[in-house]
Amino acid sequence: MSQTLPATAVPGSSPDGFTAMLVAARTASLALASAPTRLKNTALQGIAVALRENVAQIVAANALDLAAGAENGLTAGLLDRLRLDEARIRSLADAVGEIEALTDPVGQVVRGSSLANGVKISQIRVPFGVVGVIYEARPNVTVDIAALALKSGNAAVLRGGSAAENSNRVLVALIHEALVAAGLPGECVQTIDPFGRAGATALMQARGLVDVLIPRGNAGLIQAVVTESTVPVIETGAGVVHIFLDASANEQWAADIVHNAKVQRPSVCNAVETVLVHEQAAERVLPGVLAKLAGAGVTIHGDAAVRALYPAAVPATDEDWATEYMSLDLSVKVVADLDAAIAHIRRYSTGHTESIITNDIVNAERFLNEVDSAAVMVNASTRFTDGGEFGFGAEVGISTQKLHARGPMGLPELTSTKWIVRGTGQIRD
Amino acid sequence: MSQTLPATAVPGSSPDGFTAMLVAARTASLALASAPTRLKNTALQGIAVALRENVAQIVAANALDLAAGAENGLTAGLLDRLRLDEARIRSLADAVGEIEALTDPVGQVVRGSSLANGVKISQIRVPFGVVGVIYEARPNVTVDIAALALKSGNAAVLRGGSAAENSNRVLVALIHEALVAAGLPGECVQTIDPFGRAGATALMQARGLVDVLIPRGNAGLIQAVVTESTVPVIETGAGVVHIFLDASANEQWAADIVHNAKVQRPSVCNAVETVLVHEQAAERVLPGVLAKLAGAGVTIHGDAAVRALYPAAVPATDEDWATEYMSLDLSVKVVADLDAAIAHIRRYSTGHTESIITNDIVNAERFLNEVDSAAVMVNASTRFTDGGEFGFGAEVGISTQKLHARGPMGLPELTSTKWIVRGTGQIRD
Repeated sequence: MSQTLPATAVPGSSPDGFTAMLVAARTASLALASAPTRLKNTALQGIAVALRENVAQIVAANALDLAAGAENGLTAGLLDRLRLDEARIRSLADAVGEIEALTDPVGQVVRGSSLANGVKISQIRVPFGVVGVIYEARPNVTVDIAALALKSGNAAVLRGGSAAENSNRVLVALIHEALVAAGLPGECVQTIDPFGRAGATALMQARGLVDVLIPRGNAGLIQAVVTESTVPVIETGAGVVHIFLDASANEQWAADIVHNAKVQRPSVCNAVETVLVHEQAAERVLPGVLAKLAGAGVTIHGDAAVRALYPAAVPATDEDWATEYMSLDLSVKVVADLDAAIAHIRRYSTGHTESIITNDIVNAERFLNEVDSAAVMVNASTRFTDGGEFGFGAEVGISTQKLHARGPMGLPELTSTKWIVRGTGQIRD
Repeated sequence: MSQTLPATAVPGSSPDGFTAMLVAARTASLALASAPTRLKNTALQGIAVALRENVAQIVAANALDLAAGAENGLTAGLLDRLRLDEARIRSLADAVGEIEALTDPVGQVVRGSSLANGVKISQIRVPFGVVGVIYEARPNVTVDIAALALKSGNAAVLRGGSAAENSNRVLVALIHEALVAAGLPGECVQTIDPFGRAGATALMQARGLVDVLIPRGNAGLIQAVVTESTVPVIETGAGVVHIFLDASANEQWAADIVHNAKVQRPSVCNAVETVLVHEQAAERVLPGVLAKLAGAGVTIHGDAAVRALYPAAVPATDEDWATEYMSLDLSVKVVADLDAAIAHIRRYSTGHTESIITNDIVNAERFLNEVDSAAVMVNASTRFTDGGEFGFGAEVGISTQKLHARGPMGLPELTSTKWIVRGTGQIRD
């Protein structure tokens, strides 16, 4: 928390320029922390306008990244995530407008009381200060995160994938201009992309200059940040998500919920990856569930009991149970009872979301109590674990860690608190 | 979050025994997490009784530690912190009784709502799971932390200083018996002292087996844990605490508050270390403040302006401004105005507690807004930053970090949350 800057704080190449950048972020964060909501909203409006008015410039920079990406053999999927066209830029500008409309968390009173001696204490939300974000080559994340950080009063230091460097440079320059035009320091949002991989390493070691680090991306990226960082990390993790069809599961609910959880958007973290079925429900419930999935082109990876009921299933391997497919694949297993289901979930879950389909109150309560995940559900689709669905507005990510934030993270999760103590000369007895 | 245990998870000596211990803690934590409050309270009562009934055994074990400590040249202060006598053991038992009387945080509903589609969501407090604590040779901490962890539903893995090994072994054995007698797994509280220094290192690397690590002790110990740990850490930090006497400061309040903050208990983290005085208040306010401190034997480390007013002051060095004395020493400096005071605090504060003594509303609000510490005060003694004073009951420590908990930590700060989602077949549109 100390503002004293050890000369050796930041390793890596170009340490002087890099440290100077983080010090500038810290200074900017102090101005931003006490900026009134109106000023932050003006800057957000400016960013939205700048995106809409500079489509051609953004698309041109993005074209450089796309060409380099194609040359470097990026897959079609990665190129698609890298691409910005006019429609995507307009929808990004709309998203910034939605963030502007959210309630400012800064200054909210969390709790408070009056002590016996007349001293008044209250715990209020304050920004973290400087938030570092390390993510993949998705330029939309640059705008999203900058807007969320700004609204919550945090300076942002961004490290995007090098494949998006040209796009990110233009976006950060536009954001910088909008900040300055609104009367805020441009250094509230900075990119460290020019420092390359060494910059990412230095960011992870910049404890004292950066208050919290949020990795967004694949499991490998998140693991690397968690392992290497001395800065506190908020982990937004992978989802090996389970649905358990209990003995009493309603057939229609089971078929609808599993279909929704797998098919609606298979590539997201709240999509289901494994269905467990009580052996007493397998014959009654499973055919309807699997028929509906087959109609959507889902490949079933089944254990022997599943394959006996559904010969089209491919045999499930040990790895299948631990796999986040993010595709139209689903592991399905028959289990002896609720205990076996909970044991399987404890072994393979990533702690994101699990749901039970049941009509048995005792089993529902046991599942809610005994499954230790960020979201635990009864008779609902796992796709509901989402900041938008929960009513938070924009989402920073879904935390699968237990410290600070767990589950969908909205703007309040981008804040810390401080205690305000008001007295009239009181001393401690 | 995954319960899969990589074979190479834990480095250090005796990895098999060590990992088995952490796995046992995890298993015990699952039983403890869903244990009703009544069961946890029975165990706490049992611990209090066991302490009172086994004074002789505890004192005998402690005598071995004291003898070894004296032989190894421990200072009188360290030997005093290591010592357990009948009075101290009885007061430890009383403290366990007080923790039993606190409200159980587990299951408390933090917030909740009903979504448009009828799905009900609520965020409830749940234990972290397994909490690791690394602390110095103070056997009272063993009992304190075990009781706090138990009440909040967490299994505790304890690493105390090796100089207290005999005392801790007896205390943990008594706690173990009380847990088992109450019908809870004895492995809810375990010591890794037999694994020595390698055990501490392995504990810091046991991400996935240990949910959170809390270092308690001197700055060096905390810094080592923060730097080496891959397990998320809650930092309970040092306090270079400031009081600013503004131009309009009430003379009596200034003298009383500074005296209280320095003299009442100089060795604790919320004691003041530096007083800054507005140059317009120096002649009016400082003589009374310093005379009262002199009466208590406080050594003043002053800048030139202070020494001109108070020749008994010794010259303050650059290190003085950054020093947590924990003794009857105080740094005092005259500053030009509020801005200079805030700038000094930003440079030297450890983010624990700062207070302004003023009658100026604008300056009070600016100080509250612009000083970024866990507790910021107006016209009150810094000694109020304390879980007991804030009404939290027992205190886990005072967090000076921004993630998860900031300021005095009570039982709720030893919990995480999870989202409970209850539906009747809803799917996402």
